[in-house]
Amino acid sequence: MEFKGRFGPLNVLTSAFLLIGLVAFLIFSLRSETSSIEYGSRQKKAFSAPKHNVWAELSEDEAAEVNEFIITEATHLNLTLHPKSAQDNFIFVVETLKPNKTDAAPYLYDGASIPERWAKVAISQNFEDGPYMVYYMVGPLPITKDSQVLPLEYMFNSGRNCIKTPLLDFSSVMDFALSMAENVSDITQELLGARANRADPSDPHGLLAFPRGSRIETGGMVLWMQFYRPGMGSGARTLLPQGIYAKVDATSAYIADWTVGQWYYNGVMYADEREFRAALDDPDFVRTPPNIDGSWTDTEDFGDYPDRDLPPPVSVQPYGPRYKLDRKENFVSWFGFEFYLTTAQATGISLFDIRFKGERVIYELGLQEAMAHYAGDDPMQGGLEFMDSFFGMGKSEYTHGYMFELVPGYDCPAYADYLDTEWHQAYKTHKMPNSVCIFEYTADYLLSRHTAQYSVTASRNTFLTVRSVSTVGNYDYTIEYVFYMDGTLEVKVRASGFIFAAFYTANNTKSEDEYGHRIHDALSSSIHDHVLNWKVDLDVAGPTNDMVRLAIEPMTKTYEWDQPEQPKRNTMHLVEYPVTEETGLDWPSNSGEFYIVYNSDEKNAWGERKGYRITSGTGMGSTPHLTILNSTTLGDSARWAEHDLWVLKQKDTEPRSADPLDYFSPYDPLVDFTKMADHESLEHGAPDTEYDGDLVVYFNLGAHHVPHSGDIPNTLMHTSSSSVMFIPHNFADRDPSRQSVQGVRLQLQGKKSGGFAG
Amino acid sequence: MEFKGRFGPLNVLTSAFLLIGLVAFLIFSLRSETSSIEYGSRQKKAFSAPKHNVWAELSEDEAAEVNEFIITEATHLNLTLHPKSAQDNFIFVVETLKPNKTDAAPYLYDGASIPERWAKVAISQNFEDGPYMVYYMVGPLPITKDSQVLPLEYMFNSGRNCIKTPLLDFSSVMDFALSMAENVSDITQELLGARANRADPSDPHGLLAFPRGSRIETGGMVLWMQFYRPGMGSGARTLLPQGIYAKVDATSAYIADWTVGQWYYNGVMYADEREFRAALDDPDFVRTPPNIDGSWTDTEDFGDYPDRDLPPPVSVQPYGPRYKLDRKENFVSWFGFEFYLTTAQATGISLFDIRFKGERVIYELGLQEAMAHYAGDDPMQGGLEFMDSFFGMGKSEYTHGYMFELVPGYDCPAYADYLDTEWHQAYKTHKMPNSVCIFEYTADYLLSRHTAQYSVTASRNTFLTVRSVSTVGNYDYTIEYVFYMDGTLEVKVRASGFIFAAFYTANNTKSEDEYGHRIHDALSSSIHDHVLNWKVDLDVAGPTNDMVRLAIEPMTKTYEWDQPEQPKRNTMHLVEYPVTEETGLDWPSNSGEFYIVYNSDEKNAWGERKGYRITSGTGMGSTPHLTILNSTTLGDSARWAEHDLWVLKQKDTEPRSADPLDYFSPYDPLVDFTKMADHESLEHGAPDTEYDGDLVVYFNLGAHHVPHSGDIPNTLMHTSSSSVMFIPHNFADRDPSRQSVQGVRLQLQGKKSGGFAG
Repeated sequence: MEFKGRFGPLNVLTSAFLLIGLVAFLIFSLRSETSSIEYGSRQKKAFSAPKHNVWAELSEDEAAEVNEFIITEATHLNLTLHPKSAQDNFIFVVETLKPNKTDAAPYLYDGASIPERWAKVAISQNFEDGPYMVYYMVGPLPITKDSQVLPLEYMFNSGRNCIKTPLLDFSSVMDFALSMAENVSDITQELLGARANRADPSDPHGLLAFPRGSRIETGGMVLWMQFYRPGMGSGARTLLPQGIYAKVDATSAYIADWTVGQWYYNGVMYADEREFRAALDDPDFVRTPPNIDGSWTDTEDFGDYPDRDLPPPVSVQPYGPRYKLDRKENFVSWFGFEFYLTTAQATGISLFDIRFKGERVIYELGLQEAMAHYAGDDPMQGGLEFMDSFFGMGKSEYTHGYMFELVPGYDCPAYADYLDTEWHQAYKTHKMPNSVCIFEYTADYLLSRHTAQYSVTASRNTFLTVRSVSTVGNYDYTIEYVFYMDGTLEVKVRASGFIFAAFYTANNTKSEDEYGHRIHDALSSSIHDHVLNWKVDLDVAGPTNDMVRLAIEPMTKTYEWDQPEQPKRNTMHLVEYPVTEETGLDWPSNSGEFYIVYNSDEKNAWGERKGYRITSGTGMGSTPHLTILNSTTLGDSARWAEHDLWVLKQKDTEPRSADPLDYFSPYDPLVDFTKMADHESLEHGAPDTEYDGDLVVYFNLGAHHVPHSGDIPNTLMHTSSSSVMFIPHNFADRDPSRQSVQGVRLQLQGKKSGGFAG
Repeated sequence: MEFKGRFGPLNVLTSAFLLIGLVAFLIFSLRSETSSIEYGSRQKKAFSAPKHNVWAELSEDEAAEVNEFIITEATHLNLTLHPKSAQDNFIFVVETLKPNKTDAAPYLYDGASIPERWAKVAISQNFEDGPYMVYYMVGPLPITKDSQVLPLEYMFNSGRNCIKTPLLDFSSVMDFALSMAENVSDITQELLGARANRADPSDPHGLLAFPRGSRIETGGMVLWMQFYRPGMGSGARTLLPQGIYAKVDATSAYIADWTVGQWYYNGVMYADEREFRAALDDPDFVRTPPNIDGSWTDTEDFGDYPDRDLPPPVSVQPYGPRYKLDRKENFVSWFGFEFYLTTAQATGISLFDIRFKGERVIYELGLQEAMAHYAGDDPMQGGLEFMDSFFGMGKSEYTHGYMFELVPGYDCPAYADYLDTEWHQAYKTHKMPNSVCIFEYTADYLLSRHTAQYSVTASRNTFLTVRSVSTVGNYDYTIEYVFYMDGTLEVKVRASGFIFAAFYTANNTKSEDEYGHRIHDALSSSIHDHVLNWKVDLDVAGPTNDMVRLAIEPMTKTYEWDQPEQPKRNTMHLVEYPVTEETGLDWPSNSGEFYIVYNSDEKNAWGERKGYRITSGTGMGSTPHLTILNSTTLGDSARWAEHDLWVLKQKDTEPRSADPLDYFSPYDPLVDFTKMADHESLEHGAPDTEYDGDLVVYFNLGAHHVPHSGDIPNTLMHTSSSSVMFIPHNFADRDPSRQSVQGVRLQLQGKKSGGFAG
């Protein structure tokens, strides 16, 4: 790759992260930010985190300092603060470069000094073959004479620190599409009863066209564009495909060179626009009535349903929260759980240094990537795939992924604490108020219950939740971390919003029903897999851990005490299989294995290794992985999606399973997960063993989504939930929740008292 | 089988259902009933069910009438109202014989007259070879000259209507055990520091011994008895095994003939008591300190934990319920859902005629059996198994299964409606107040959410729950039916209580860790499988249904629109596999199949078959089935445990998958499930096809339970939950919850309004 200086015309600020193939971006390009509402801060006791949050987002001042330092000091980058064209290189993203674990751990656990603070910077740079997004690291912060701007390479196993931006000019793509659509206005008027309005792209009646890209082996792209109605009523654009598709040769970076080729309608390919137009006159030409927006896409029905006007039950917290929150350090303490929270633009919330009753449990827990992969027999859906960290599960001004302001009393209880987040793009600091919430909730069911001879005891299940909602195009992902009083920790995601539907043709044959159900006039529900990848760096009672598969297996055995009545007995037993090398695992059939991370050096009072079990949790069934084998669309950009969880060595050089920019370069990603999960030995403890036993687990949440009529207008969260849980397994000597639960003991009729303390 | 008249001495009322091998019974034989508390009834609008509850429990008057009719009219049974010895035959259980579906359906759906009401009666009858429990049917009710007492045989595919009671005299078993224990008081004093107290079995310091039976091929039983401390403090008897086991030859029905044989301690077998006693003097004799009761078995810790005194959030319902309840007919209506509720002694709650927005969904939904199967290398745990319907998941005075009174504000919200239940045993009617609750709850998460361009909509997830708690020995099962506004229905069970632990020996080798973890001084957590079987008679939009497996499968395919750039594409598609014969199914690997029950004759507006999907729900991961293959202990009594779900023809002659009495006769049960699930064709619709397409599904909930230190003192419910859900799949034309949800639409900053109705 050469970095030389040839520049084309460029709409600088919007082109950087915008590219063909990203339909969701286009759909929401008109959206404004939410308004800022102040909920009033509540009085809390003074409470301070024991350490600084070394993973905290950069402050506005830090970001400004970094920007200025790069502009003024790194003159070889030739940057400007006020980019006016593509000939100006500029800083796109400035955020915290999280410290290496080997630097942070001595500070957290051994009293060492605080690790250096660095920034991770993405810079849009133009070279001879066009603009690239290039990663740098800048630090230490605050800026001193020792601070440097260095290429950020150590975390990318590609050896590169940049990805080519595949398109020079986004706004022209939109114009190209509208122009192409206007050229067939006679056809669209006849088939769809509408036409594009190039003069006013936000015309509520004007057709739009959006592209989906396919990589070409020789480089460049070919696009398939589909026509959509704009869905201004409910924002339901993804429910309004119109079934006319055009193929665009986009191998050139210059849109002026693009040409429109084949057309596709109702399952028939036409060589060009003229052939398509001519076919309309054929008496056998088959038409499908289009999908017209209407009340069916409305997310509420304001009709009178009996008893609907009565308020439902609601959770209240009359005496204030029982957790402690240090808002400066984003540190939370709740009945033995302690953790730091931070956010990132691509991936939203991460938690660090999670401890339970003073013992280490998890060093890092956070989303890595969120993928949605479609299938279909039409040119749009057939190759559609999203990697949502690119759009920003945290927030991004230009790619329109958002972690929006939460709705108090709905997204979270009105009594929750709400945290603000901020991010820095293109020299500006953006603030999103109330985009993270923290609250306690009491479940509708008990944590434990026991009926003894003369008494019954019941303990309430009150849990702590940290929640945010990431809006990416048509979908809202509610992501949460749930803490339970026994030390259990849950990661859960629920998807809601409009599905990305396909056009359902009138001449439908079996082949179309292969990809979904018919759910409206000309609408197919369009099957897709959601696979969201999380990193969890477990440090169970310390960093040195082992993972085992504890299997419950049937067996036939002869027991001495069974003789002579039962010569052999069909029964079951436990078999432990250590995980001895980096590998991917799937949830076992019949849930017949427990995946446990043990600390072999730290035993509980009964001599059992302290452990945490990893299991598919209280989402719908077991979490799935990607159905498709070796996806053509994904290439090497999401190999983590191919198994349910992965066990790897912790390495400072492998801090993440994916990079947002890999959406641009699926066959040559910055991070190839197969190079991380490459079967290295996980044996440790031997004197000549380099590996010290600090393992990392990656796991997936998600769903095989086969939407049906009930997904119209929106997918519902109670059945779209997906969860993985971390459950103490011989971690303590006894259930720790007994110390902190609220409950009752009721005496029954009878003479004797139950319980020792009652 | 011959019914002839030879009778032994018999403690009539207690012997009938009590037998060796039933440890849980013995453990709680001293327990009293709960007290009755009145919560005050609330005012409701007058509301009446559209039909009579034809499945309702017998009233006290009906039961008395049945008792009197049998006693006075069925003189051939030679019954007495006041049994004094085993020479008196007597009525043990009187309950409703639920009408055949083919009799009830015409009444419910076609305006036919109400079906005849009959009673199901279990009578303890003595024959030449001892007492039997014999089923009869009595009706029609009310008693007229046409009423009859008939053998109840049609529902048992064994062709029999009785099971032999394997033990003549329970109270003598207890005495035998105490006598045996007293005979080794010198040994127990030395090894355990305690002795049995035959004079006072409820001595809080006295050792007890409980048996576990093994069937012998030639008939009769051999018992292994283990010593226990009584655990009077917390009722924690099952956590206090003492590790001394004695083998008892119980082949004779007469306890006077029983003899004590081998002894077992710390993994060593001794030929007899004398050899055991002599071994103690061996200097190499290995001792394990016993398990002593103490605060570690207490289910609450009353210590001062910071902030524990602050009340947690609580759900309130300030404006009253939004469901309607006809307490006379036990009929509930809530936002489109309507159903009848009834209870049974063996199995607790069943729901009937569940409809959603006027359409039929489920005819019958109810628990069939609850099994817990242990494994171990000691003589107790190695053969331990419980079938809890025998003990009574509903209620039973003599076998000490209970559906106890619920604790308001804990088991269910204080604002819930509580229903009373009653049952009839041995000529008495027993009432259990407040043993079923019904309430609405608002989840901590939304039902749906969508961020549109200029607005966000959020809908609350308020659901309806019907709940009861079945206490069987050491465990409390919380069983619930949850209804969601979109038509989804969930069946959930959560287990809590003391585990049934094993003795962990001091000379433990690998073989003992094969069956559990060490969790106290000499305590093993003792792995076991819980498998609870439910019947669901789905009538999706009517009785004629088909079941399909809708698979999401990877494939490689060539698409015309992909050429020439992508010659072949790795993608995925749907493949539908009809279930064409009665069979057992397991949840698919990678959750890669949807199990859907369709009505092929009833289509929604889009031409899709109306359906309901059956899936493992929001319990922990996917529900498991029994690990053990062809269990020696279970024989043919629980073949339904061997797969996750089953699809069968609905037949009046197969109303249940199990009978409580089969616990007595595992190798020759009244109901052998393999004879029900016998691969009969499920094809229907052809003119010469006898089968009309009314299918029934049986499914299992449960867990592979590998308890760990956190299960002491009690297993926790949040991680023991297990669920199956029924989710509409193209059932309606659009999500029906839009009509009934509560929610908000917030306008964001921006010019355009979102939504059609806003």
